[in-house]
Amino acid sequence: MIKSAAILSIGDELITSGAIESNSVWLADQLETRTVRTLERRVVGDDRAAIARAIRQLTRGCDLLLLTGGLGPTHDDLTRAALGDVLTPDRPLATDPVALRHLDRFARAGRGPMPQSNLVQALRPESMRMLANPLGTAMGLAGRHRGCMIFAMPGPPREMRRMFSRTVLPAMPLDPQKPVVLTAGVHAFGLSEANAAERLGSLAEPAENQRLGITVSGSIVTARVRVQGLRPDAEQRIQRITAAVFDRWQPYAYGRDDESLSQVVGTLLTESGGTLATAESVTGGLLAALIVDAPGASRYYLGGWVTYSDELKSAALGVAAAILNEHGAVSEAVVCAMARGALASSGAEYSLAITGVAGPTGDSDAKPVGTVFIGLGVREASGGEVKSRRFRFPGDRGMIRDRAAKTALQTLRFALTDVDRATPLLGEA
Amino acid sequence: MIKSAAILSIGDELITSGAIESNSVWLADQLETRTVRTLERRVVGDDRAAIARAIRQLTRGCDLLLLTGGLGPTHDDLTRAALGDVLTPDRPLATDPVALRHLDRFARAGRGPMPQSNLVQALRPESMRMLANPLGTAMGLAGRHRGCMIFAMPGPPREMRRMFSRTVLPAMPLDPQKPVVLTAGVHAFGLSEANAAERLGSLAEPAENQRLGITVSGSIVTARVRVQGLRPDAEQRIQRITAAVFDRWQPYAYGRDDESLSQVVGTLLTESGGTLATAESVTGGLLAALIVDAPGASRYYLGGWVTYSDELKSAALGVAAAILNEHGAVSEAVVCAMARGALASSGAEYSLAITGVAGPTGDSDAKPVGTVFIGLGVREASGGEVKSRRFRFPGDRGMIRDRAAKTALQTLRFALTDVDRATPLLGEA
Repeated sequence: MIKSAAILSIGDELITSGAIESNSVWLADQLETRTVRTLERRVVGDDRAAIARAIRQLTRGCDLLLLTGGLGPTHDDLTRAALGDVLTPDRPLATDPVALRHLDRFARAGRGPMPQSNLVQALRPESMRMLANPLGTAMGLAGRHRGCMIFAMPGPPREMRRMFSRTVLPAMPLDPQKPVVLTAGVHAFGLSEANAAERLGSLAEPAENQRLGITVSGSIVTARVRVQGLRPDAEQRIQRITAAVFDRWQPYAYGRDDESLSQVVGTLLTESGGTLATAESVTGGLLAALIVDAPGASRYYLGGWVTYSDELKSAALGVAAAILNEHGAVSEAVVCAMARGALASSGAEYSLAITGVAGPTGDSDAKPVGTVFIGLGVREASGGEVKSRRFRFPGDRGMIRDRAAKTALQTLRFALTDVDRATPLLGEA
Repeated sequence: MIKSAAILSIGDELITSGAIESNSVWLADQLETRTVRTLERRVVGDDRAAIARAIRQLTRGCDLLLLTGGLGPTHDDLTRAALGDVLTPDRPLATDPVALRHLDRFARAGRGPMPQSNLVQALRPESMRMLANPLGTAMGLAGRHRGCMIFAMPGPPREMRRMFSRTVLPAMPLDPQKPVVLTAGVHAFGLSEANAAERLGSLAEPAENQRLGITVSGSIVTARVRVQGLRPDAEQRIQRITAAVFDRWQPYAYGRDDESLSQVVGTLLTESGGTLATAESVTGGLLAALIVDAPGASRYYLGGWVTYSDELKSAALGVAAAILNEHGAVSEAVVCAMARGALASSGAEYSLAITGVAGPTGDSDAKPVGTVFIGLGVREASGGEVKSRRFRFPGDRGMIRDRAAKTALQTLRFALTDVDRATPLLGEA
């Protein structure tokens, strides 16, 4: 039974960006859904000793080794020779009669006699057998070393994928009960990775056939859950775990799998029939762009202002020059005035306003780079209210603006779901 | 002297397609231009023994080992521990006082006390030293094992790239005598890849120690030039080639290397003392966000309007309801009125306006999905007028909006550099 695998991709061109190596990711994916865990992906150049060393190391720790590339006819195609060095050292490679016929057929289908150099493609270590390749001259190789199954496949993705699906996969002894591997993600924003991990506690500890990892990308904390087992038990298990993660990460958890924060906010607005307008300074339209990213945004998003200059803050949003002079553009008073102006000028029920210092200019002791004010305006029958929060975000221009826009969306999500107003958001100053 | 390297990327999420591993390709590229050959790229999951084994194997065969990932605060961040297992076995990890201060600073920039779990990020093997990371809590590690230099960097690409360029690279002993590999890029927008290739002609043919490739990303056509040789000859050669490409791609070529279209437009505006305002419908703030991406944008960008609803087009930009009713929101008349409104309300010298159909809704025979009108307004003193152009862009929502925003910027660049008004832009209908 095959449970663990390693994948070795061979070729100088795969080391740098000349060609992105996608074969091994595809193969790891294929193996994972068959409950075979890939322990390692490795890329080596066209170096016979390096390939042989990798084969020796990788066959030691797992049940299956998949190789791609290095099976062509040129002098830098060295996979066959390296396999021979490991599996049948001190013995020459054998010429395979089936492979000779295959090459001959390809030559005749092509334009005339087979070049001599192609004959190397009929060579194999004595203890291995050839694998059919209807799409190219490079046949594959199958064998075994110290109890580890080895399959060598050509590098071109079309040929490799077909050979894997049609020939390699059927030859692999897999668990007959066919357990499945299910994956799911839970996303949260506004809490730190460390806090997120602490909240999960023992839930994150690896268990039999069950793993939970935390990753952070663009300040979004994601729990990736992976469960292995038989249906429907595995399905119930992953449901239970993701629900538990979602619960422990409240009120910061906002969505699952492909859901974005702006989609979730959009759904909440659509359900409540609310409309939204934005007023941005430091984020310069990024918040608006995030909101419009969600299909159907025109149902609730009326539009917004990018008031980068003070003059436009006054002219377009009615922020009084006196407030700008007294408090400065980056202040609670101004962000509240912007949110109020956006409500008044758009007629929306909700408004989000952002002002801040993204650097590199504008740094000061009182308002260092990263200082951001976020205002939320809510229209109410009785008149309405505007609240602001102050943040200090780390990082460069792009990071500060990205954090600011997402934090504004989370602020609105909190308001739409009646989250306690005292709930802190990461970066709050 | 460092001649050969290996790159080890760490993380369960990197094994399968959950996250594409781009760090090691970028690093191999960086090393190649310094004539350091990457012998192997390897990916292992979050398994302490597997990471330690990989470190042992990889330090054996080369002068430099670069690690990325596994430096976070959670229990599946095991790079520090695995480095300790190899470099200082049987000795506990040491707590680094500089790292403690770093963590404390980050915690204070956030919202209060540092979670206990973050303290693991201050741990290092006794024989290693910490590397600064101004962008995140995870500091890097530097050390040596059996004559092989080791640098461990955080996984998030922005943090990794900055740490490599600012800290790791300067610490690497490189061969001063060796030939260098120089790379340069020339970017153009608004012409097709085929047209771009045709214009280059024989310039694109591979020559001794010299290569030129054309890539397209986000509709930006880029010529990547790579020259190998001794300084200063190689420098002169790459200068000559990029200048020739820039010349043949006029007037579409706008910049080199890291230059963005919005930076180039920003420089032109700064030089001429001009100011800019935007009025967006379909792009929903994306154009504003692109403009503000350039540092110093506040010198020339006054701000803009995201008028997603018809009501806001009338209320904020003064687009007459009669025009909207007669021509529809996606029309030459409306985009011109938006550009005019942005000029009038902002006081800017230039305005850009965009309206269009990004889909999936709003499709019609007269204005199918992808139809976009771009308006350019120029104030009286500099020759007052408003012009519009009609486009039909292929692709999905995101692609249409991206093309529209960049095309608007190129339209303005053409006006600022007196490009013949009849010059066509890709997608013009």
